[in-house]
Amino acid sequence: MGIDPGTNVMGYGLLGINGKKPTPIVLGAIELNKVGDHYLRLARIYERITGLVDQYLPDEVAIEAPFYGKNVQSMLKLGRAQGVAMAAALARDIPIAEYAPLKVKQVVTGNGGASKEQVANMLCHILKLDKEKLPAMLDATDALAVALTHFYESQKPAASSSAKSWEQFLKLNPDRLRK
Amino acid sequence: MGIDPGTNVMGYGLLGINGKKPTPIVLGAIELNKVGDHYLRLARIYERITGLVDQYLPDEVAIEAPFYGKNVQSMLKLGRAQGVAMAAALARDIPIAEYAPLKVKQVVTGNGGASKEQVANMLCHILKLDKEKLPAMLDATDALAVALTHFYESQKPAASSSAKSWEQFLKLNPDRLRK
Repeated sequence: MGIDPGTNVMGYGLLGINGKKPTPIVLGAIELNKVGDHYLRLARIYERITGLVDQYLPDEVAIEAPFYGKNVQSMLKLGRAQGVAMAAALARDIPIAEYAPLKVKQVVTGNGGASKEQVANMLCHILKLDKEKLPAMLDATDALAVALTHFYESQKPAASSSAKSWEQFLKLNPDRLRK
Repeated sequence: MGIDPGTNVMGYGLLGINGKKPTPIVLGAIELNKVGDHYLRLARIYERITGLVDQYLPDEVAIEAPFYGKNVQSMLKLGRAQGVAMAAALARDIPIAEYAPLKVKQVVTGNGGASKEQVANMLCHILKLDKEKLPAMLDATDALAVALTHFYESQKPAASSSAKSWEQFLKLNPDRLRK
């Protein structure tokens, strides 16, 4: 399950893995704009994520998490929204992984600077989704993109078990080389 | 129930109201220093706060919440810790109130610049607590202080129901005057 947590819209997307093939199960967005009260927004996030967790029983949760923001105020609010969403997963002992937006774009499109539209287009191509039938909000496709990123990242061979030399390790994990 | 949420230590304190008299029920601190993993810390907060909520069934939760911090990174982490603690209350439909540290010090000691020790001393005086028997960690007394602040604030006559003129409203709520 991928989550793109925001304080105005929270996107979610579930990916099923059949063998080694990822298949989209559901994607959508929780609109928080119309909820005026800060606590009601957090409560809405908690309820909806808990509902999705209980309905689809995801094995793992991946969150798109920017680590830098404009100001401390907005980061505190974003942290709260993330914390509430994480609590819904932690309450069911579901492991959480985080990916920076740049990493998600990089993995899905091959370009860390890709636009949300480019991510959505590539996602439709990879997962054979009909773009016309997608929810209009790009937060939903963003959430599915972080789920796909997590799937690809967990498919990577674990370094310690498979690499027999540093040369092979670096070949398997080129991004681990500090330049 | 008062909570002083931090990423290293989370203080909690429960205050019972008998008639109009506040009586301390329990106070303590959840140590998170020894938990290395970020998610395990958040999970620990969620579990412990949920446990306290289920054990003591608080009617309201008050959180000490600084709105400004050193940097965006630490605010994101603090926001997550707050969000997870809030989720434990929101999951049981318990209303949440927030108070800035300055407000808590102001209400409890009359001085917004009071030290944690001064807050603890005043708290012992007001609630007739034996200082020797208190937990060593000041996060616990800070949490009880925010619970006491919330009690005092909710005891204030509601402006709309009691004030018969703007003059009276300002007399009852001097802090509402924007200077």
